[in-house]
Amino acid sequence: MIYFDNGATTFPKPQSVINAVSSSLKEKGANPGRSGYKLALQAAELVYKSRSAVAEFFGASSPENVIFTPNCTTALNTVIKGILKKGDHAVISSLEHNAVARPLETLKKIGVSYSIAEFVPYDDDKTIDNFRNAINSNTKLVICTHASNVFGFKLPIDRIGAMCKIYDIKLCVDAAQTAGIIPINLADSYIDYLCTAGHKGLYGPMGTGLMIINNEKTPESLVQGGTGSQSEILEQPDLLPDKYESGTVNLSGIAGLAEGIRFVKMRNPEKILKHEIILIQSLYDKINKISGVELYTQRPDERYFVPVLSFNIKGMDSESVAMKLSEKYNIAVRAGLHCAPLAHKSMNTIDGGTVRVVLSVFSNEQQIMYLADCVRKIAKSI
Amino acid sequence: MIYFDNGATTFPKPQSVINAVSSSLKEKGANPGRSGYKLALQAAELVYKSRSAVAEFFGASSPENVIFTPNCTTALNTVIKGILKKGDHAVISSLEHNAVARPLETLKKIGVSYSIAEFVPYDDDKTIDNFRNAINSNTKLVICTHASNVFGFKLPIDRIGAMCKIYDIKLCVDAAQTAGIIPINLADSYIDYLCTAGHKGLYGPMGTGLMIINNEKTPESLVQGGTGSQSEILEQPDLLPDKYESGTVNLSGIAGLAEGIRFVKMRNPEKILKHEIILIQSLYDKINKISGVELYTQRPDERYFVPVLSFNIKGMDSESVAMKLSEKYNIAVRAGLHCAPLAHKSMNTIDGGTVRVVLSVFSNEQQIMYLADCVRKIAKSI
Repeated sequence: MIYFDNGATTFPKPQSVINAVSSSLKEKGANPGRSGYKLALQAAELVYKSRSAVAEFFGASSPENVIFTPNCTTALNTVIKGILKKGDHAVISSLEHNAVARPLETLKKIGVSYSIAEFVPYDDDKTIDNFRNAINSNTKLVICTHASNVFGFKLPIDRIGAMCKIYDIKLCVDAAQTAGIIPINLADSYIDYLCTAGHKGLYGPMGTGLMIINNEKTPESLVQGGTGSQSEILEQPDLLPDKYESGTVNLSGIAGLAEGIRFVKMRNPEKILKHEIILIQSLYDKINKISGVELYTQRPDERYFVPVLSFNIKGMDSESVAMKLSEKYNIAVRAGLHCAPLAHKSMNTIDGGTVRVVLSVFSNEQQIMYLADCVRKIAKSI
Repeated sequence: MIYFDNGATTFPKPQSVINAVSSSLKEKGANPGRSGYKLALQAAELVYKSRSAVAEFFGASSPENVIFTPNCTTALNTVIKGILKKGDHAVISSLEHNAVARPLETLKKIGVSYSIAEFVPYDDDKTIDNFRNAINSNTKLVICTHASNVFGFKLPIDRIGAMCKIYDIKLCVDAAQTAGIIPINLADSYIDYLCTAGHKGLYGPMGTGLMIINNEKTPESLVQGGTGSQSEILEQPDLLPDKYESGTVNLSGIAGLAEGIRFVKMRNPEKILKHEIILIQSLYDKINKISGVELYTQRPDERYFVPVLSFNIKGMDSESVAMKLSEKYNIAVRAGLHCAPLAHKSMNTIDGGTVRVVLSVFSNEQQIMYLADCVRKIAKSI
């Protein structure tokens, strides 16, 4: 099978990640942070080292500001619900995932409102204007994806962040599609909360995500419970990371995520991005020539894009194209809305969605040639 | 190392569980429920089969009523916050974990109140009376641990459930310490919501938990986001299990949990319980004779207890005993409050906590003899 669904999760995982998961289960399998015996301390050390590795990778101010979550969605929910209160207003981009839109829809019931700032492709000035116009005196939070999970557009988060600072608004960035390929240095950014998945460009296992807090304002916790700290007090502890990590953590997931980050560092994020961008451009060039193929963006370059490409074949819905690619050619791509209806509305693809190709460090030119060839055959057959 | 901290997490895990985790990462590593290609369908099938295995094990009405959560704490938070609204009242036992007490303390801020019904050891009538007296006209939910994680007491959840039915109150049971050793058949119970950990008596990996819904009233979701279903709608889907499983699930954790349940079924929960009860009685008998050892319960039998034993040694705090057992004798036990201050208040051990021994299917008499011997040496040395 040729796998191009790395936007859902990267596959395969590096063998070192699988080994880290197994060995944590086999050799470090005590509950970390709960007890003082050797194995529990080793488990706690594994978690602390992983936290430190994440902090270093993203330039977080301290390991304690790194919160392990079950996925990016939970991280985003924690920020959104932990910051926004009755009467507050949020601004999001028009490319946001349902992981942002759905919690905000839920908050409407308690009197939180939000506006959508239209992303304008290739015109950051207009995009910034739209964000500025969407802000009002009650705006407390801007939530913005670092790059679209459907079309690959990168958003001007530096400029959005600079604007947020002027208006004293917190910025939460969804880096699910960028962590591991686009460098993020929190120390040198306007990002207040960084949320990301652990199982995409960071090559960790599914079931891992991160919330990194990069300012003094900590969101309220979404889940409360045992933290192994201040156990005598019925209120949730306020100290980081305990405030957000109630109950037993996903030790083997965390071990795998830390190993994934080691892998990414070893391969060098810049080189990974370069590798993937060259391939996605190659794919773009090849399928752009095929009669019947619809593309929605300019040729992706790394200033404006991450290596994500959406397309359709005229006369065939996206699900059928994906099905054909799977059944006849053993190629894995995702079709439909990719949990991001706002992005499809913004790009006028809401009716049928798109076929999406997302690459990984393991993708290669031969696979791209094969994919383009199969797309050509399908387009021809209609 | 001799491991007696199975109340925090069971260790070791069966090799088959570790293998299931590894092979899911290696061979089934696509995102389940998001796409239609072969590997994604295989991943979705793995999740569905795991869900079915859980449903069958607990007698759930359908696999869809089984919700995979990151831990028992998140399951309890989902029920508590998804059911209780402003003005509502809850009743909990005096043996509850902070995973119950802390979310309820948090809900106080929005006008939810709760009362604690004192558990009376060896007198279920009085315990039931205390629950009945704690109920008022606003009581919507009773949350009760199936067995104390500190003292091993089993609570009369059948009688509590029967009473809840009379007053039309929902019952949520925390089975973190009982799932896998005490049979739970939801079809033949008064339990409305069952919450449990996947990594204790079910032998799955840390990072897994379960919420099983056993009535028509579904709690509001705690987290909203992409579900791979009804993606065009910004409201969270109402269908089960999607309503509660936003974002990417912990595929390898779920695979490991299902394998853990297979392991438990193969070993037979009744036999596991018998095995552990005989060992805990043996430990009780041995350390009960040691001068200076304080025990807090009667000799544990399986009608009233699960295989959990708390003790102290006079003249030495629980943490120091545990430290000595670890450093000098390479024995792993947990000391302190075990995230359950209410239980310690109830049993007058809040000041120093207790040393806790929890067994697993892998515990044996030789280990028990060694532990008792080491406790004797420590007690003598004071």
